Formats: sequence, C-alpha cells, structure tokens
Amino acid sequence: MDDVASVQIGLFEATHSARALRRFRPDPVPDELITRVLDTAVRGPSASGGQNWIFVVVKDPAVRARIGEIYRESSRVVQAEYAERAKPAHLGDRQYELMKKSSSYLFEHMADAPVLIVAALKLGAPGSRHSPLSREDEIARFWRTSGASIYPAIQNLILACRALGLGTVLTTIHTYHEGAMKAALGLPADAYTYALMPVGWPLDKFGPIKRRPLGEVAFRDRWGNSWAG
Amino acid sequence: MDDVASVQIGLFEATHSARALRRFRPDPVPDELITRVLDTAVRGPSASGGQNWIFVVVKDPAVRARIGEIYRESSRVVQAEYAERAKPAHLGDRQYELMKKSSSYLFEHMADAPVLIVAALKLGAPGSRHSPLSREDEIARFWRTSGASIYPAIQNLILACRALGLGTVLTTIHTYHEGAMKAALGLPADAYTYALMPVGWPLDKFGPIKRRPLGEVAFRDRWGNSWAG
Repeated sequence: MDDVASVQIGLFEATHSARALRRFRPDPVPDELITRVLDTAVRGPSASGGQNWIFVVVKDPAVRARIGEIYRESSRVVQAEYAERAKPAHLGDRQYELMKKSSSYLFEHMADAPVLIVAALKLGAPGSRHSPLSREDEIARFWRTSGASIYPAIQNLILACRALGLGTVLTTIHTYHEGAMKAALGLPADAYTYALMPVGWPLDKFGPIKRRPLGEVAFRDRWGNSWAG
Repeated sequence: MDDVASVQIGLFEATHSARALRRFRPDPVPDELITRVLDTAVRGPSASGGQNWIFVVVKDPAVRARIGEIYRESSRVVQAEYAERAKPAHLGDRQYELMKKSSSYLFEHMADAPVLIVAALKLGAPGSRHSPLSREDEIARFWRTSGASIYPAIQNLILACRALGLGTVLTTIHTYHEGAMKAALGLPADAYTYALMPVGWPLDKFGPIKRRPLGEVAFRDRWGNSWAG
C-alpha cells in the first residue's frame, strides 16, 4: 500500500470510476485510511456551514452483526417493492436483473464488510414557521432539502475511498428501521440517519460508470429543450 | 483556458479547495465546460440506478432574471430565520456574521451569474406502503433519503467546476417558492427541485476549506466514543 499522503488520482478519473462495490475481502482497513476518508467527507458543504453531521465508523464485529440484522430486516420492504414495481425504462431486462441481484447480495452480507460507516445529521424541529408553503408541503420541503447537508459529504467519502483503493456503496434502506439503528449506535434523539456504507478492499474492479445520455437529462433554459440538441 | 480534456487536478486537491463561491465575472462560460460539468455530475449514484434527475442549465437573461426574483423572494424566509435563530456553537461571532453576509450577497445577485443550474428529481408518489413506519414517519423518511439520488451528483458538479476553474455554491432556499420555480422552467408535475447553483468565473479564490475537528463529528463503534480519541 502506498503512503496515504502520497496517493494521487485525478478528479475526473475518480468521479468516472467510483462505481458501487459491494463485495469485500475480509482484510482489515487501517484507521489511517478511514481518517483520510472522513477528512475528505467533511470538506463537503452543509446548510449555513452548520456541519451538524455525525459519522459512526463501525469495526466491532458485534455491532456490525447487529447492523447486518437491521439491514436484512429492512431489505424485506425493498423485496416487496421490487415484486410490484416496473423496470425503469432506460434499463434493459438483463441490466435490471443484474442491478437487483447485486443490490440483493448486500441484504445478506452487509456485516461481512470490515468497516461500516453510518452518516447522520443532528436537526432541530422540522420545517420553518416562516415558510409560505402549507404545513404538509413545508415538512416535505424540509426533509427533501435536508440531504443537501450530508449527501455531498457522502460523495466525497465515496471518491476518497476510490482514491485509496477502497470499495463502498451508498445505501439508505436501513432507515425503514431507523429506531433500531439509532439504538444500535447510541445516537441521540435529535439525530437522523441518512446513509449506511460498507467499506473494504473490493473483490470487484472500479469503473467505468455508464449513464443515460446527457441529452435525456440535461436541458437548456427550460425543461424539454435538450442540452445536447 | 486549457483544453477541457487536458484538465488535471488531484482528487484531494479538488475536495479540499472547492469552497462556496458566490461572486462571478460577467464573462460567458463556454457550453463545452458546462457539458463536462454535467457529464461529471451524472457519474454520481442514484437509488436503484434510477438516474431520475433533471438538470436545467439557464443562460437566457430573462429566465435568469425570473429565477433571481424567486430567489430574492425566498430569501425573506431565511432572513426571518436568521433574526430568531442562535449562532451555531462552533462558529465565532465574526465567522457567523461573515457567513450571513456572504450568503446574503446572493439574495440580490443570483441572476448576475452567467449560468444557473437547477437540479431536480422525477419521483413517484412519496413513501412505500410496505414500510413498517407510521405514515408520517414514512413520508419524512422518503423525502429525507430522496436526496441520496441527487446531492452526490451535485457534489460531483461542484468538484468538476473546481477542476475547470469555475466557481459555484449549493443553494436550496428557492424551494420555499417551488411552484414558481417549476413554472419558470416548465418542469413537469412529478419533478421536485433540490438545488439552484450559480456558476461562473469566480472573483474570489478557491480553498482551503476549514472544518470542525474530526474528533467532534466522527465516532468509533458508537456515538460519543470519539474517532480521534
């Protein structure tokens, strides 16, 4: 392994090859690397510079096992969703089956990763009483934009892992059992979890990351006027 | 300007210096650079690989002016919040005043940026009917985790801007006037906006990004057990 300080990877190489990796070697990950990953995560933005984030790094096998149970339990909701939801139009049949199969692997194997990182935010009461929106819409708006203070940091975390040769993937389904997760980690009442990320030396390879054509998702001045057109 | 393809910046240099920049030269930004920024954004992850994102790049002065109005109107909510909210404990008095002052600059100047990018997601009905949570908690959970499919892409966008010498900042307050923003961009009914980002050649300098000590926000195995300790 290279010295942490000497690791060099280009930004665009990292962004374009940091694909979701879910299978890991059992080998331990040195704390020094996790520190570098966290140090990169917290360079992300947060609302009003609040930095109200909490990162819990779980290496203890007993705590990992408990989180693995919570994740497995949460996966039942997803399996019920898969059973009734249509395939996204831009995925071929084989791609969709592959996506479901690779996601499903973690349902039974989350605890196998040598490191689990849970990201949370400490938040005040939801919603602004100065909002012009209805109470219902304001609550939805509050939660919808709350992720702006944690998911950018998560992407930094993903890219730092990529730079150091570590695999990871962003997952959120444990939130179906938020109470159990908070209890497992001793999180305070005003904390809400946003991500559970297994981290380890990957069995599979990095990138390239394939995506829908930009012309389908990017527009000029108004929706419908393709950026590429 | 360097050829786009030849731009090289280290990942960690980008993550650690891509600070919020809000003041821009009026000079135009070539489409080629925006394409590179968008191409990097979409390498971010999304739930089940859904890529249900919409990026609207606004250069048209009339549409920018309208968005500027919506942003100014939205800022009234934030000013009312500032007036009654306490200073975050980790910010000094001067830091807090500076933060408020630099955020406030955009309240009047959003439309001055030569490019505005609005990021949205197309979503189905909120919440899973298979969730074990109460309906209210499930709705909050749905919106809270929905950002996992757009804010990582936003961080990629921020880092790509940094690599190309462009400044930007993640803002969300226009969502207080979501209906007006959707009308201004002709967004479909099932789209929800998550970010408004001014982009341009910055008047101020990049990085370094200072943050709270890791020991205050990162923990080992359970909350309260400092990672650094």
